[in-house]
Amino acid sequence: MIGAGKTRFGPSTHAMPRLAQEAILGALDDAGMSIEDVEAFIVANFLGGPNESQLHLNSVIAGLFPDVRRPGWRVEAACASGGAAVHQAVHMLAAYDPILVIGVERLSGRPSGELTRNIGMAGDVTLDQLQGLNFPASYALVAQRHMQRYGTRTEDFEILSLKNHANAQLNPLAHFYHKQVSQSDIDCGATVATPLRLFDCCPVSDGASAVILSAEAIDARSVPLIGTGLSTDVISLAQRYEHTTFASAREAARMAYAQAGISPAGIDFAEVHDCFTIAEIVAMEDLGLAAPGEAVELIRAGQTSIGGALPINPSGGLKAGGHAISATGVGQVYEVCKQLRGEAGERQVRDSRVAVTHNVGGVGGTCAVQVLGRPT
Amino acid sequence: MIGAGKTRFGPSTHAMPRLAQEAILGALDDAGMSIEDVEAFIVANFLGGPNESQLHLNSVIAGLFPDVRRPGWRVEAACASGGAAVHQAVHMLAAYDPILVIGVERLSGRPSGELTRNIGMAGDVTLDQLQGLNFPASYALVAQRHMQRYGTRTEDFEILSLKNHANAQLNPLAHFYHKQVSQSDIDCGATVATPLRLFDCCPVSDGASAVILSAEAIDARSVPLIGTGLSTDVISLAQRYEHTTFASAREAARMAYAQAGISPAGIDFAEVHDCFTIAEIVAMEDLGLAAPGEAVELIRAGQTSIGGALPINPSGGLKAGGHAISATGVGQVYEVCKQLRGEAGERQVRDSRVAVTHNVGGVGGTCAVQVLGRPT
Repeated sequence: MIGAGKTRFGPSTHAMPRLAQEAILGALDDAGMSIEDVEAFIVANFLGGPNESQLHLNSVIAGLFPDVRRPGWRVEAACASGGAAVHQAVHMLAAYDPILVIGVERLSGRPSGELTRNIGMAGDVTLDQLQGLNFPASYALVAQRHMQRYGTRTEDFEILSLKNHANAQLNPLAHFYHKQVSQSDIDCGATVATPLRLFDCCPVSDGASAVILSAEAIDARSVPLIGTGLSTDVISLAQRYEHTTFASAREAARMAYAQAGISPAGIDFAEVHDCFTIAEIVAMEDLGLAAPGEAVELIRAGQTSIGGALPINPSGGLKAGGHAISATGVGQVYEVCKQLRGEAGERQVRDSRVAVTHNVGGVGGTCAVQVLGRPT
Repeated sequence: MIGAGKTRFGPSTHAMPRLAQEAILGALDDAGMSIEDVEAFIVANFLGGPNESQLHLNSVIAGLFPDVRRPGWRVEAACASGGAAVHQAVHMLAAYDPILVIGVERLSGRPSGELTRNIGMAGDVTLDQLQGLNFPASYALVAQRHMQRYGTRTEDFEILSLKNHANAQLNPLAHFYHKQVSQSDIDCGATVATPLRLFDCCPVSDGASAVILSAEAIDARSVPLIGTGLSTDVISLAQRYEHTTFASAREAARMAYAQAGISPAGIDFAEVHDCFTIAEIVAMEDLGLAAPGEAVELIRAGQTSIGGALPINPSGGLKAGGHAISATGVGQVYEVCKQLRGEAGERQVRDSRVAVTHNVGGVGGTCAVQVLGRPT
């Protein structure tokens, strides 16, 4: 990874091309190159059609640089679109080098009912969503099952939410950078879907992220991407055997670790897909960072804070950093890159050599996992 | 290319997963393999979100084969989604082999105003579509400019339309297989956007196509895919310098020919993106099969018919074979495969060794070109 750029996540008045442009120019600047140097580009986007009435985004992005014609296309795998695009780019470097990956999403400005319906397109529309099993309800089922099976408590969700909000206050690009969240805020939070309350849920954000990948390092700031995995699972929860773990995430992690030649014990910190607080717990267990049911022990002991033994979501995660759907997976790679270079400022994790990203689509219908190492 | 399957194009009562399943099972059967043998899959789809309220189609398709977990994602590049997915698959064979590419689309069952609006998402929504420059209007401008510059006539469009309808009557999977079209039908066609009339426009179809790619031939029926190209251009016509040719198509063809080591003179027949009759003329010129302004001479002389020196769209093309958007580009590769194997029945082109496919998104915002050769 030779360059990375990102907009702030949160409500924006900018249209998608303008958001993408800011992230692209940031990544190009970071890599010290110009758009002419890029051989191909991949645009990750989920809701451009239903929300913004604009598809064919590779051609829209091409319009930002009218005299540069390159192979480009859009990738979509619900909220895992960004991680899927990075996975794909890694496997296409033999054909195109360097490759620019852009994740962009615009979610604000829509009535909430329409937005809920549109986000529901990431789930099984006929079997699940139309029956009322929208995403908060789906993850509430995951949470209930996890609580029954392992004794996980709502207090665990609260510790996790406070931790991610505290981290976001150290991240100027976070959605809730300026928002201080206390235990009493959490206590006052409305119930969204039992047991999940307001502060168990991530916000919807506008934003864009971009990274540039090359097979060779260009300088001492190049961050080695040493493993990538991607897997899919059936979309409907009704077709699943288990609901406290995602098979796609376990398989994607297995692939990424095998390529990187590491085990979960070799990981120093992680950026994971905490669209709901319970999802961060499931993520830690699916990534093998804790045994099933045991992630809460690390959380209760404060080990997943920035200063702990295994920091999770030092950026604030989706919960407080924001969730600009397709920009999220690419943004995780951006974030890990900043950390491994030692450029993360106040939220810097110390002495980290290997980090993992974990980006989920739907309720585990797709998962992408990437492993990155410290620049050498 | 080791396997190919395709549904009939045209109005269907089947949902997208059922259409995709039929094409996938056809391709697997053709290759003599089972789904377990496939290492990764790519789903090309354009309007699943706006039309069918279903995104995350890689997970939906995974649900057809619930016990098989593979890396998969969706690719979108408007009407070039299928060709873009094939291009990508070719460049990922080092990572995954074999790869299954599925193009699927469902367009029927929507009110025509809504469908026009949704298809408009392939163009620049703010600069072009909302100003009334929808796709028939855009291609009408291309036609007007071509007529002014080169003396192309509406009679040329009519010859071309009659030729493609005649070809479709030889293709049992064509949208208009059962429809006989005469000169008097064309004469009675309503004006859609001057100079384009009803029989200058392709229909919207439901359908799916699937192909399986591998780096190695598996038997004497494997069809070598010897070149692939993909390029993008700015999306808005207002940003273009020229309107009688598509820069993306010329660049994609250049890339594909260079990889195949051929010149346009080496091509025996072509399946091109004739969403409107004028588009077939532009395609022939962009592919270098005729000099600018000279494609009409081949058309007038009957050389582009199945029995001619350079058959174009022996399947009936989009015009009469049907246009199931993302299934179209994959379907072109299916069609060329059947032809080069000598399995095309009544529409068989004789003595052909090399063929080209040409799949356009928007008004040339994206173009994918593939070159295939006869099995050896």
